[in-house]
Amino acid sequence: MTTPPRPHGIHLIADLAATKGLDDPAFVEAVLREAAAAARVTLIDLRLHHFGEHSGVTGVALLAESHISIHTWPEHALAAVDIFTCGGEARPQAALDHMIHRFAAHLLRMERIDRLA
Amino acid sequence: MTTPPRPHGIHLIADLAATKGLDDPAFVEAVLREAAAAARVTLIDLRLHHFGEHSGVTGVALLAESHISIHTWPEHALAAVDIFTCGGEARPQAALDHMIHRFAAHLLRMERIDRLA
Repeated sequence: MTTPPRPHGIHLIADLAATKGLDDPAFVEAVLREAAAAARVTLIDLRLHHFGEHSGVTGVALLAESHISIHTWPEHALAAVDIFTCGGEARPQAALDHMIHRFAAHLLRMERIDRLA
Repeated sequence: MTTPPRPHGIHLIADLAATKGLDDPAFVEAVLREAAAAARVTLIDLRLHHFGEHSGVTGVALLAESHISIHTWPEHALAAVDIFTCGGEARPQAALDHMIHRFAAHLLRMERIDRLA
């Protein structure tokens, strides 16, 4: 019996200045689904929470490969995004690029962390 | 009308070598609830996924203050933890300390990132 390969993850931590859809949970959900598809990962579950009309949204996509999360502050035109994928087939940068495009955003800051390395 | 204060978050990114409970979703759920209490944050929703008997667990706690997530690989005695809290009252380090204790773990790596700073 061989030992399974040790997991290795890539975690993109991105703060965005964003102008579109930050107070719209249906839009945030759609973008999370699209981002998972762009990353070529498997979506297991998706949870959204809306903090109230004109207020922020928290969304988490549970993936077979780890997770994508977003927290938004429409009153500040800010969003905090994490894209954490394990496995060499996943394309986390493609997910982030898609989210930046859909939220009409630009990156304020991004860090890439190798997890479990 | 005053502008609300800009959000500020602390994100702890921790990889753990862990020996207890990594294949037990009920245990992981309990630890997530306890970690949220230790951090003095408000739990909104909790989602667990178990990848199969003796296999890993993904758990995400949605918080009023952002999220706590964990992904486990019991076959490698590894867990990847994120604790992301916004607001000056939250105590993310207390949550991490609690998780390390409960999973009989030690830190392989930890980074603290100031989000939206």
